[in-house]
Amino acid sequence: MDENSSLIPVRFEPSGPTVHVPPGALLVEAAAQAGLELQMPCGGEGLCGKCRVRLLKGAGTPTDQEKRRFSAEELKTGWRLACQTPVRQALVVHVPEATLAQTAAKILLVGQVLADFPIQPPVVKRFVVLPPPSRQDDKPDIERLARALQPDSPNGEERPTSGEKPLRADWPMLRQLPDRIRQCGFQGTAVLADNCLLDFEPGDTTDRHHAVAVDIGTTTLAAALIHLPTGRELAVRAELNPQTAFGDDVISRISYAQRSPGCLEELRSAVISAIDQLIGQLAEQAGIGRQEIYYLSLVGNTTMQHLVCGITPRYLGEVPFTPAVGGSLVGQAAGLGLRIHPAGLVYVAPVIGGYVGGDIVAGMTAAGLAQQDRPTLFLDIGTNGEIVLAAGSRLFAAATAAGPAFEGARIRHGMRAAPGAIERIFFDGQWHIRTIGSERPKGMCGSALVDLAAELLRLGGLRPDGRLCRPERSNEAGGDRWIQTNGEPAFVVCPAEQTATGESILLTQRDVRQLQLAAGAIRAGIRLLLRRAGLRPLDLDAVFLAGGFGNYIRRRNAQRIGLLPPEVPVERIRFLGNTALAGARLFAISRQAQAEAERLARTALHIDLAAEPDFAAAFAESMLFPENVGWNSSPK
Amino acid sequence: MDENSSLIPVRFEPSGPTVHVPPGALLVEAAAQAGLELQMPCGGEGLCGKCRVRLLKGAGTPTDQEKRRFSAEELKTGWRLACQTPVRQALVVHVPEATLAQTAAKILLVGQVLADFPIQPPVVKRFVVLPPPSRQDDKPDIERLARALQPDSPNGEERPTSGEKPLRADWPMLRQLPDRIRQCGFQGTAVLADNCLLDFEPGDTTDRHHAVAVDIGTTTLAAALIHLPTGRELAVRAELNPQTAFGDDVISRISYAQRSPGCLEELRSAVISAIDQLIGQLAEQAGIGRQEIYYLSLVGNTTMQHLVCGITPRYLGEVPFTPAVGGSLVGQAAGLGLRIHPAGLVYVAPVIGGYVGGDIVAGMTAAGLAQQDRPTLFLDIGTNGEIVLAAGSRLFAAATAAGPAFEGARIRHGMRAAPGAIERIFFDGQWHIRTIGSERPKGMCGSALVDLAAELLRLGGLRPDGRLCRPERSNEAGGDRWIQTNGEPAFVVCPAEQTATGESILLTQRDVRQLQLAAGAIRAGIRLLLRRAGLRPLDLDAVFLAGGFGNYIRRRNAQRIGLLPPEVPVERIRFLGNTALAGARLFAISRQAQAEAERLARTALHIDLAAEPDFAAAFAESMLFPENVGWNSSPK
Repeated sequence: MDENSSLIPVRFEPSGPTVHVPPGALLVEAAAQAGLELQMPCGGEGLCGKCRVRLLKGAGTPTDQEKRRFSAEELKTGWRLACQTPVRQALVVHVPEATLAQTAAKILLVGQVLADFPIQPPVVKRFVVLPPPSRQDDKPDIERLARALQPDSPNGEERPTSGEKPLRADWPMLRQLPDRIRQCGFQGTAVLADNCLLDFEPGDTTDRHHAVAVDIGTTTLAAALIHLPTGRELAVRAELNPQTAFGDDVISRISYAQRSPGCLEELRSAVISAIDQLIGQLAEQAGIGRQEIYYLSLVGNTTMQHLVCGITPRYLGEVPFTPAVGGSLVGQAAGLGLRIHPAGLVYVAPVIGGYVGGDIVAGMTAAGLAQQDRPTLFLDIGTNGEIVLAAGSRLFAAATAAGPAFEGARIRHGMRAAPGAIERIFFDGQWHIRTIGSERPKGMCGSALVDLAAELLRLGGLRPDGRLCRPERSNEAGGDRWIQTNGEPAFVVCPAEQTATGESILLTQRDVRQLQLAAGAIRAGIRLLLRRAGLRPLDLDAVFLAGGFGNYIRRRNAQRIGLLPPEVPVERIRFLGNTALAGARLFAISRQAQAEAERLARTALHIDLAAEPDFAAAFAESMLFPENVGWNSSPK
Repeated sequence: MDENSSLIPVRFEPSGPTVHVPPGALLVEAAAQAGLELQMPCGGEGLCGKCRVRLLKGAGTPTDQEKRRFSAEELKTGWRLACQTPVRQALVVHVPEATLAQTAAKILLVGQVLADFPIQPPVVKRFVVLPPPSRQDDKPDIERLARALQPDSPNGEERPTSGEKPLRADWPMLRQLPDRIRQCGFQGTAVLADNCLLDFEPGDTTDRHHAVAVDIGTTTLAAALIHLPTGRELAVRAELNPQTAFGDDVISRISYAQRSPGCLEELRSAVISAIDQLIGQLAEQAGIGRQEIYYLSLVGNTTMQHLVCGITPRYLGEVPFTPAVGGSLVGQAAGLGLRIHPAGLVYVAPVIGGYVGGDIVAGMTAAGLAQQDRPTLFLDIGTNGEIVLAAGSRLFAAATAAGPAFEGARIRHGMRAAPGAIERIFFDGQWHIRTIGSERPKGMCGSALVDLAAELLRLGGLRPDGRLCRPERSNEAGGDRWIQTNGEPAFVVCPAEQTATGESILLTQRDVRQLQLAAGAIRAGIRLLLRRAGLRPLDLDAVFLAGGFGNYIRRRNAQRIGLLPPEVPVERIRFLGNTALAGARLFAISRQAQAEAERLARTALHIDLAAEPDFAAAFAESMLFPENVGWNSSPK
């Protein structure tokens, strides 16, 4: 019996595989079956247009979403959205390279640490030699061990007095302890978290002691394996967050989690599997066993932290965006489904609010924000945009609805910072572009978008109100690059014949609106925080830029489009890199860093920007690009 | 196909069932299959002779154990030990009633509490109303709850300052919390253990709040259900500890646990199932649900506590008898397999040493032993014999190898205090006996044994060195009662025609040796503890008797045989009843009682009697019954 008899064949070009799917299966599902992961930042809603494919054979009637997304000509030649197309007949499908999910994105793994914390891990190892029991000394095993662990009084001590916390252990450890310490010949390595005995290992294993720090980005997971005795990083890796398949920003994740009872679990297990796999890869890379990892520190935005813990993010999606938990969480890693040492612990960083999460607290800790004497702005521009203002002993924190425009989403030819992405654009009489990996261009990443907008503003091709229009001296600014698309003006960043996709790379009017919204949201946020602190932009002593995007922009261009305050001298704008991962590393190696994070999270005043009375006005005003910030100097 | 074709039929008389067993199965196993639980205190080693049965058909060659146990005549008429007899051919077996395990033993459930502790349970319930979140107050759910729980500052407070412990919860609770508090309309009952949130229940459930206290005796499990808001006992029950099937004393349990890898688990799960069943019965009796029980307190001797936790008791069976843990344990009840509220906790009492366990600490707590100004002796004579001497601020504790003679084991016609047991014997010119339930006598329990020995000592039928012999004035003391059995003298307690079994109930010379050993061990222990404290028996102000056996003896008779110090005026010997269960109740309702127990266990000096230099001499001397303690007065 042919098991494919009732299934429909779908062939994917140019890579070639043919799969058989049941009638009605979506084309994205068929692609997944063929091993092709398609971009789908909107979560399969037909909104982003990223999953476009061309049906070479078998194209049916387009949906309304597809009609909005494609021109009549495109529809006629078979262009469709894979997330909207059910398989009803045998298909041959062309998948453009740009439609494939980028699995080798350029991810920032290095972050600067401006604060100084001693190495004092939350889980410690101590090699001890116990006096064997005798009729003169028949103290219980665990007290014998506790006594040996007391540094000052190795022998002959009574049980700890009531002021001290007695050594404790969970049922599984208690059950193993008596045999274990005897098999070890009354010496071995105690693994301790506070007064809790996690394990007792034969021999001296104090050097085999590791932790993994994980930055759970909305888009990217980054993880570092740390050798705790030295604090040295043994390996570092990154992967896409597999939750991107369910939507590219936190809002689409939150809404996906509500869709049906199993969806939260689907999101949870996706990210847990990916972290678990990263842990395995890091261990393999460093040549250690998973069971030699005793501690995990996880940081992420509030939604990511909720999802990784399996806590519903539902109320993060509803006014007033209330998190379930504010302080840090410590629990058994096994309880989250993460496989390290069986008794290993997981730490989840404290958050400030529904949209100012543990990644920001980690960054604040790494940046030593509480130690800044003069007003300092901390900006993390990634999938979200978070702003923290340190002013004396006060901290103000807010999230902006910047959206993922800077990561290439919702931009016609936007893409993540991956090989082939245009990452830099400048004009010196003619247009220059630079791509990541020097590959043929596939699209533009966020830093190029900022560059281009800044150059076009300078050249008059972009008006302060955001209108794209052929500049008066258009020849000087590339007169042949101005076209109309879908009845709106657009600028050709790279003509079709030079791209990897065979399609022109454009900046559309719609793209500019997305940029205005994203940059305006951050600009308005900075204004409002400064106002709350009673400060002016001129009072700012420094701006710290964190996050993937922030580290690749040209600072002066960012000032030109109003994303960064033009009033701050450019040399006082510092790139700190991936401070979320840097902070997560600190949490893994230093209890003091954890205590500082707790203090920062507790101290920071969380500002709900949308609830501020003058938010609407500030946002509307910030949507306009700055009129004149003396931008005749060349970009730095 | 007849599934019995290769099986051998075994019929049990007088109850009648026939079962089919594979060749070589032991007769006890066949009996178990027929629903007949046989007495087997030695754990099936062929040592105790309690499982004797008569083969009416099919008796094979007796084993050496059986030859030692039975006379040639008995062997010829088919008497065998069920634990030693493999089934090789079809059998018809007569099971004497005395061989059946007693399942309705007389168990002491009441214990006196001499100490005063406030009701302050380790798990508390608080009904709270939370202000719903708003844009002006977007604090995380758990902090909102923590704030509402602070009695003095219901509103507008910041997070707890670093000095206070923040409210925490395990993963499952965290996952439920956001939906739960909203479904509850922002009011409900928080269930808290310290700073840990165990549950948040809709409505005001503060009155539905219970705990179960369990005394895990070697022989008997006793459990009480307590209503925590009032401290009132709603129900109390007892059952045999099913581990008795694996041996009647702790030594046989310890040795069974070593037999093969699964044996420890077998012992653990047997007692856990039985406790779990008791909990269910108590809940049903009181008309509450299991999930309304939030706390269990378990006390038992050190071996029982190890077994219930699944910790190997192996090193309690080897010099120097070291426990795994000394302090109290607190963990999730679910982690032990006990079904109460899913997040409910279990407390296991602290122990003093390998043979002075949590039951004794519980008794010391209930008896307020630390508050006794004058020297006081606390004696718990059950399956084991534990002795505590409180002398000023000092506490001395020791265990004696008393063995289970007082519970009827290893005594030819001994039995537990169950219906039909002779519990009292006295002689006033003729012999009188009294049985429990006024039934026809089946055997003797411990208190009758003490009575009989005291009377025989008085009448000269028992010499101070322990020899049984027809007294000179034998007619006065029942001359017809002196017989010979197995070549040794014996005293007929009850002639065959008056017993329920049709067999005479005897006191044998061997029984007297067992009594000498048991009483001598305790007597020697008391002497040595007094010596360590620098006291004489005369200095004792009071003797507290705890445990089942201790509460049914005639004090003066116990003094006569040297079990209790004759120097203490009889009215200063107090019966306290089941102080282990009374203490377990205190631990369930009072954190102060737990703290006191911890302090007592830490303070008490654990004396290993066998390691004392003069132990051998003291024991040898104590084996002799006291020569003359002025015992002409009649027994009280």
